[in-house]
Amino acid sequence: MVRTPTPEDRFSFGLWTVGWTARDQFGEATRPALDPWEYAGRLAELGAWGVTFHDDDVVPFGAPDEDRDRILQTFKKAVDAAGLVVEMVTTNTFSHPVFKDGALTSNDRSVRRFALRKVLRNVDLAAELGAETFVMWGGREGSEYDGAKDVNAALDRYAEGLDTVAGYIKDQGYGLRIALEPKPNEPRGDILLPTVGHALALIARLQHEDIVGLNPETGHEQMAGLNYTHALAQALWSGKLFHIDLNGQRSIKFDQDLVFGHGDLLSAFFTVDLIENGFPSAGQDGPMYRGPRHFDYKPSRTEGFDGVWESARANMETYLLLAEKARAYRADPEVQAAMEQAGVLELSEPTLAAGESVADLLADRRAFEDFDADAAAQRGFGFVRLNQLAIAHLIG
Amino acid sequence: MVRTPTPEDRFSFGLWTVGWTARDQFGEATRPALDPWEYAGRLAELGAWGVTFHDDDVVPFGAPDEDRDRILQTFKKAVDAAGLVVEMVTTNTFSHPVFKDGALTSNDRSVRRFALRKVLRNVDLAAELGAETFVMWGGREGSEYDGAKDVNAALDRYAEGLDTVAGYIKDQGYGLRIALEPKPNEPRGDILLPTVGHALALIARLQHEDIVGLNPETGHEQMAGLNYTHALAQALWSGKLFHIDLNGQRSIKFDQDLVFGHGDLLSAFFTVDLIENGFPSAGQDGPMYRGPRHFDYKPSRTEGFDGVWESARANMETYLLLAEKARAYRADPEVQAAMEQAGVLELSEPTLAAGESVADLLADRRAFEDFDADAAAQRGFGFVRLNQLAIAHLIG
Amino acid sequence: MVRTPTPEDRFSFGLWTVGWTARDQFGEATRPALDPWEYAGRLAELGAWGVTFHDDDVVPFGAPDEDRDRILQTFKKAVDAAGLVVEMVTTNTFSHPVFKDGALTSNDRSVRRFALRKVLRNVDLAAELGAETFVMWGGREGSEYDGAKDVNAALDRYAEGLDTVAGYIKDQGYGLRIALEPKPNEPRGDILLPTVGHALALIARLQHEDIVGLNPETGHEQMAGLNYTHALAQALWSGKLFHIDLNGQRSIKFDQDLVFGHGDLLSAFFTVDLIENGFPSAGQDGPMYRGPRHFDYKPSRTEGFDGVWESARANMETYLLLAEKARAYRADPEVQAAMEQAGVLELSEPTLAAGESVADLLADRRAFEDFDADAAAQRGFGFVRLNQLAIAHLIG
Amino acid sequence: MVRTPTPEDRFSFGLWTVGWTARDQFGEATRPALDPWEYAGRLAELGAWGVTFHDDDVVPFGAPDEDRDRILQTFKKAVDAAGLVVEMVTTNTFSHPVFKDGALTSNDRSVRRFALRKVLRNVDLAAELGAETFVMWGGREGSEYDGAKDVNAALDRYAEGLDTVAGYIKDQGYGLRIALEPKPNEPRGDILLPTVGHALALIARLQHEDIVGLNPETGHEQMAGLNYTHALAQALWSGKLFHIDLNGQRSIKFDQDLVFGHGDLLSAFFTVDLIENGFPSAGQDGPMYRGPRHFDYKPSRTEGFDGVWESARANMETYLLLAEKARAYRADPEVQAAMEQAGVLELSEPTLAAGESVADLLADRRAFEDFDADAAAQRGFGFVRLNQLAIAHLIG
Repeated sequence: MVRTPTPEDRFSFGLWTVGWTARDQFGEATRPALDPWEYAGRLAELGAWGVTFHDDDVVPFGAPDEDRDRILQTFKKAVDAAGLVVEMVTTNTFSHPVFKDGALTSNDRSVRRFALRKVLRNVDLAAELGAETFVMWGGREGSEYDGAKDVNAALDRYAEGLDTVAGYIKDQGYGLRIALEPKPNEPRGDILLPTVGHALALIARLQHEDIVGLNPETGHEQMAGLNYTHALAQALWSGKLFHIDLNGQRSIKFDQDLVFGHGDLLSAFFTVDLIENGFPSAGQDGPMYRGPRHFDYKPSRTEGFDGVWESARANMETYLLLAEKARAYRADPEVQAAMEQAGVLELSEPTLAAGESVADLLADRRAFEDFDADAAAQRGFGFVRLNQLAIAHLIG
Repeated sequence: MVRTPTPEDRFSFGLWTVGWTARDQFGEATRPALDPWEYAGRLAELGAWGVTFHDDDVVPFGAPDEDRDRILQTFKKAVDAAGLVVEMVTTNTFSHPVFKDGALTSNDRSVRRFALRKVLRNVDLAAELGAETFVMWGGREGSEYDGAKDVNAALDRYAEGLDTVAGYIKDQGYGLRIALEPKPNEPRGDILLPTVGHALALIARLQHEDIVGLNPETGHEQMAGLNYTHALAQALWSGKLFHIDLNGQRSIKFDQDLVFGHGDLLSAFFTVDLIENGFPSAGQDGPMYRGPRHFDYKPSRTEGFDGVWESARANMETYLLLAEKARAYRADPEVQAAMEQAGVLELSEPTLAAGESVADLLADRRAFEDFDADAAAQRGFGFVRLNQLAIAHLIG
Repeated sequence: MVRTPTPEDRFSFGLWTVGWTARDQFGEATRPALDPWEYAGRLAELGAWGVTFHDDDVVPFGAPDEDRDRILQTFKKAVDAAGLVVEMVTTNTFSHPVFKDGALTSNDRSVRRFALRKVLRNVDLAAELGAETFVMWGGREGSEYDGAKDVNAALDRYAEGLDTVAGYIKDQGYGLRIALEPKPNEPRGDILLPTVGHALALIARLQHEDIVGLNPETGHEQMAGLNYTHALAQALWSGKLFHIDLNGQRSIKFDQDLVFGHGDLLSAFFTVDLIENGFPSAGQDGPMYRGPRHFDYKPSRTEGFDGVWESARANMETYLLLAEKARAYRADPEVQAAMEQAGVLELSEPTLAAGESVADLLADRRAFEDFDADAAAQRGFGFVRLNQLAIAHLIG
Repeated sequence: MVRTPTPEDRFSFGLWTVGWTARDQFGEATRPALDPWEYAGRLAELGAWGVTFHDDDVVPFGAPDEDRDRILQTFKKAVDAAGLVVEMVTTNTFSHPVFKDGALTSNDRSVRRFALRKVLRNVDLAAELGAETFVMWGGREGSEYDGAKDVNAALDRYAEGLDTVAGYIKDQGYGLRIALEPKPNEPRGDILLPTVGHALALIARLQHEDIVGLNPETGHEQMAGLNYTHALAQALWSGKLFHIDLNGQRSIKFDQDLVFGHGDLLSAFFTVDLIENGFPSAGQDGPMYRGPRHFDYKPSRTEGFDGVWESARANMETYLLLAEKARAYRADPEVQAAMEQAGVLELSEPTLAAGESVADLLADRRAFEDFDADAAAQRGFGFVRLNQLAIAHLIG
C-alpha cells in the first residue's frame, strides 16, 4: 500500500518501545524481555535507520563495569551488523526507587549528585556511540503536593544540572546536543517543565543554552490538551527543535504511547506536513526540522511479538502515508488558492513596513482613524474550506 | 469572620468582573450594564484598593474623541472620589468582529495595524492614569485549524507587535510594564502562548524583554491541567511575575472565572502561601510577588446585583482567610520539622559544592561508585504528612 | 471528489447551525441573522434532506400568537418549497434569563411550570410539522456549586417533567419520541445527566420510558474524554438511540461544535462505521441506528456566508467519504481475517453454553482447575494491526 | 486536632492501599510487600473498623488449595484478633496477563469462563468471611481501538456475567450485594461502563438488578471531569449506592489515588456533607448512604512505612474534620436562610400540584400566558453567597 521505508527516511525507535514487556500500573508483563541486541536486526529489516536507548535498557542498573563493557560490545556489534545507527541516547533517572523524588531536583542532595554522575557517564557512552542527541526526560522531577517542593530551588537545581552536563559536553568536545522532553504529569502529579513552552523558558536562562533544545513528544503535549504541531512550531521558531518523539494519544488521560496516527489523526497529518514541508510561507528555506523521525510508543499490552513488529511497522507506514498526502496537499493549486484567500501567507509580511517607525504608524490615518473596522470584519477567511481540503486530501 | 480588607491589602478588580452582564455562549444577559463610573464607589466600600479595565469597558468601541474624553473624565473623577487607583489597563482586541482571526497575529495585515494602533492609544491612556501594568491578553491570537495559521510567522508578528509596544513605552518614558496573559483555548481552538511557559519562552526572545512579563490567571493554567502555583513559581524564577489574575476553575473545561477559592481550594491555599510568604527556603528575601492582588472572575449568571457584590467580597474574604492560614502553617514548628524531614530546604543547596568542578564530582566516589542507591532509596520523604499538616491548618 | 448527497442520505441540519451569527463568550456576532425561512433553499441545494430547530430559532421568544402563526406559516412554506422535512424539533430552555438556574429543574417552581408549558406548546408544533423526534437538551439543568442544588430533588423534577411531556405526547396520540441530549458542562459548571450513561440511567426509571431515548452529540461525550462510538453503542444496546448530533471536538475543552470529522477523525470513522454497518458480529440485523444523520455544528466565527455553506457541505462530504471507507473496510478479507484473529466476533458467543447452568460451569474443570492461564495469556490479539488496517483504509 | 476514629465511624481500607509496594508505570517498588496479615493490627490501632481485599491480595494467583486455605486462616485470625471486619471483598481480574483483553468481556471465551470461575470462587470466600459487599471493577473490560471490540456483544457478555454472579449469590442464599466500580480509562484506553451513569444504565437492564449497585470512586469520576457528589446523588436517587471508594484526584489525568481531601477539597466537603447529612430537603429521612466509609487510595511512592500509616490516618482525619464542618454548615441559621433564598428546598416541591393534570397546567394562565418571564428572571439566587458560606465554614 505504501513503499517500504529506507534509511533515507531516518526512522528510529527506542529500544524500550519494541522492548516494552507490557507491565503496566495494574498488571504484570505480558511479553518477555529479549536481550537488548535482539531487536536491531528486526528493526532494520522493517526499514528502520536508527535505534535509541536509555542506559538501563541495555545495561542493568548497577551492573559491574566488566559486565557493562561486555554487554555494550555485544550490543554495538548487533547494531552495526544490522546497519543501524545509534542516533540518540538517554538516561534512566526515573525507574530506580532512589529517584522517587526526582533526580536533578530530588530534595535529597546525595541523589542529585548520583543522578548527575549517572547522566555524565551516559554522556560519554552517547559520544562513544556517535549519537548526536542526548535526551533528558525529567519524569520524576516534580511533586504531588505543592508544599513538598520549593520550585524556585528546583529550577535552580535543574538549571545547575543541565549546565553541568552541557558544560561537560563542550569540555569534552563531544558532538552532542541535549534535548529536553517535557511532560505535564505521570508519574508525578505535576512534573516540572510540563510543556514545550516551560522547557524553552528554562533553556533561555541557561549558561550553555546553545546546545540545549527540545524533544517534544506528541502525547505529552496532548495530555495537557495542547496542540503538538504548535509546540513543534514554537520550538522551531526558537531554534530549539533538536529531536522529536512521535506517537499517539487520545485526549487528556494517562500517557497512552499509541502508534503514531492512532491518536489524533488530523493533527498527525499537520505534524508531518510541518516536518516534511516546513511552514507555509517559508517552506524548506525557513525553520525546518532536520533530525530523525523517532517513534516513542508502546506496542499494546494485548499484543504478542507479531503485534510488536506490526506496530513498529505501522508507525512508519502511517508516517509515509501522511507525508505523501501532505506533499499533495501543499502542491494542490486549490489549496494554494484557499491559503491565499485565508491570508496564511500574508502573515509573514511584517506589520510595520520596512523602515516604518512607530511614529509613522501613528501618523498613518488609514491604519486607525480612517480604518473601517466593520467593513474589514466582513472578510471571510475560508478556514473551514481550507481544513476541508486537508480532509479531502487525507481521506479522499 | 475575617477582617475587612484595607487598601494595604492591594485588592483590585477588573471593571469587567463586577460589570459582567452575564451574557454567555448560550444565553442572554441577566443583568444590566451600569455606567463604568458606577462600580468604583461600591468596590471601595468593600475594601478594594484598585480597579483595572479594558479600553472598551469604559469607552465604547469607535466612540468619537469628544465622547471618549468626556467619559474618561467622568470615570477618572469617580475613581478618584472613591479613593481607588487604576493599577492596570488592558486592551480589548477580541470582542469586535474585526479581531475574529486575532489582532497582532491576524492573517489580515490591516487588522494587525489597526490592533497595534488601538493598543498604542491605550498605552497612552494607561500612562496617563498612572497604571503600572499594561496587560495584553491575546485571546483571539490562534486558530481552530492547523492549516489556517503559519505559526512561525504568527510568532514573528507577535514578537514584532510586543516589541513595538514595549519600544513605544520606553520612548515615551512611561513607567509601564507589559504583562502577557496566557490561555490555552477559548475562544480560539488553540491560542498561541497557551501557558505561562510558552509566554516566558517568547519573552526571552524579545528585544525589549526587560519590560515584558506575565499576568498568569489561575483558571487559564488549570484549563490545561497545569499547576497554577508552579506557574507563578517559574514566572518568579524568571523574574517575570508582573501581575496576577486570581479566580477559580473546576477541572479542565470551559473558562469558569469563579470566585477565587471556589475552584481548587487546596491549590489556592498554596498560591496564597507563595504570594504572601515566598518560597520556603528563600522566604521574603527570595523572589517575591509584590504587585496587586487582582481578581479576574465573573459573578455567576444566576446572581443579581446583591450577588455581584457578595461575590466581589467573597474573593477578598477567601484571600484573607487563606493568608492567615498560610502564615500559621509556615510558623508552625511541626510544619517546619516536616519540611526539614522532607528535604524541602535541602533543595536550595547546590548539587555541586562551592568551587567544585565537574572533574571533582567525577572523582568523588561517594557520589557514584560508593553510593548505595538501594540504601538511599529507603528515605521516606514524609510528603503526605506535610500535606496533611497543610490540610489540618486549612480546615482544622 | 465524492458524490453529491441526496435525500436518501437523510442529512439534516439545525437552523441554529448555519444560522449561528457567531457571537461567542468573548465577542460580538460576525454574521447577520437571516430570517428563518432563508436557509431552507440553500440547504436543499447542497443535498440536505431535513431541517430541525428550536422554537425560538423561528419565532422570537414571547412573540404574540398572531406573529407566531404568520412566521410559522412562512417558514413551513419555505421548507415545503425546498422539499425538506422537519425531522426534529427542540425547545430553547436556556437562552432567556428566566432559565438561568434551569428549566425543568430550576430551583424556582414558577420557572419550572413556565418551562413545562413552553415545552408542551412546542410538542404540539413538532407534531403539527410531522417531526418524529423531540429533542430535549437540558443545558441549564445543573449548578456551579454543590450546595446550590438538591440533586435528589432535581432528578425527581427532571423525571416529573419528562414523564409529563411523554404522557402528553401519548395522550395526544402524537407520533413523537423524546430524545435527551446529555452534556457534561457549559454553560453550567456541572450539568445534570452529563453523559449518555447518566441519561440512560434516568430514562430507565421513568414511567413512560418507552418513548424516551437519546440524542448523543459527538463533542459532548468527548468533552468528558469519553468515546462517542461507545456511547452510541450503549445507547443502541439499550434500544435508545433515537437521534444523533454529529460534529467535531478537539480534546477536552469548551464545546467547539466543529464540522463532523474536523475533530477526532479516526473516531469519526468508527462512528460512521457503526451507523452504516452496525456492530461487527450482528451487522445490519443487530441493533442499528435508522434515524437521520443530523449535524449540530457551528460554522467558525471567522467565516462569512460562503464559509457557512462550505462548512455545511463539508459535514456531508466527510460523512460520505467515511461511509465509503467504512464499507470497504468491512468488506476487506484481510480485515475480516484480522477481526477473526482478534476474537472480535467470538465475543458474541455467550460465555455459558446454551443450557449450561452455573453448576455446570463450576463442574467444568477445563474452565478453571485445568485452565492454563499462562498459556492462554500467550494469545496475541492483533488489535494494533486491525487498527492499522483501518488507518490504511482511511488514508491509504 | 480531631478525635481519634472509632469503629462506629466505620472506616475501612483496602489491603492493596496500605499494602501498595509503590511500583508504578515508570518505576520499581519502593516498599516491600508485607504478608497480608501484617496490616490488620496497625489499621485497627489507627481507628479503622474494616478491611477489604482482592483475592490475589491475600492468596497468590494460582496458589494450590492447601496453601490458599492456610493463608486464609492466618489472615482471618489476624483480622479477628485486630477486631476488624471484612466488609467487602473484590476479585482481581486485571493483573494477570490472561486478562489483558478483559475478563467478563474478553474477546477470548475461555478467558471469560475462567474469569467467571475466579469471581464465583471469590463470592464463596466473601460470603464465608461475612462481607456484605462484593465489588466488581472491570478495569480491563474495554479497548484501545474502536475496531477491536464489538461493544454490543461486550455489554451482552457483561450483563451475562453479572447476572450469572448475582444469580449464584441468590441461589446460595448469600447476604451479598454486588457493587460495580466505574472508571473511564486506565489501564485500557476506553473502559466499558466509564461512569456511574453508564453502570446504572446497564444495571437497569439486568435480570437480577435488585442486588447490583454501585461503588463510585472519587477519582474515577473526576478523571472524566465529572462531579463526584453528583454521581453519588444519582446513585442514591436510583437506590443503588451500595459502597463508596473515597480518595483524591487533581484534575483530569492518570488515576492518582491520593488521600481523601488531598485532591479537590471543596468537592470533598460536599461529598461528606451528602454522606453525613443527606440531601438538603430530605435530610436523614431521604435517600442516605449507610455503608462503610471506605478509602481506596495509594500512599505516595515517596513514602516509607511511616508515611504509609500517616497517610492512612490522614484519610480518616480529613473525613472527620469535614464531617464536623458539614454538620456546622447545615446547622447554621445563616446557611439555612441562604438555602431558602436560593430555592434549594423549593426544588422538592413537585412542579405540578397534587392532583393537577396536564390539562390543568395548560389551563393555568399564570404559568404561561400571564407569566412575566422578564420579571421572574430578576430573581437573584444568591448561589455565590451560599457557596462562600460553605468556604467560610470550611476554612474560617
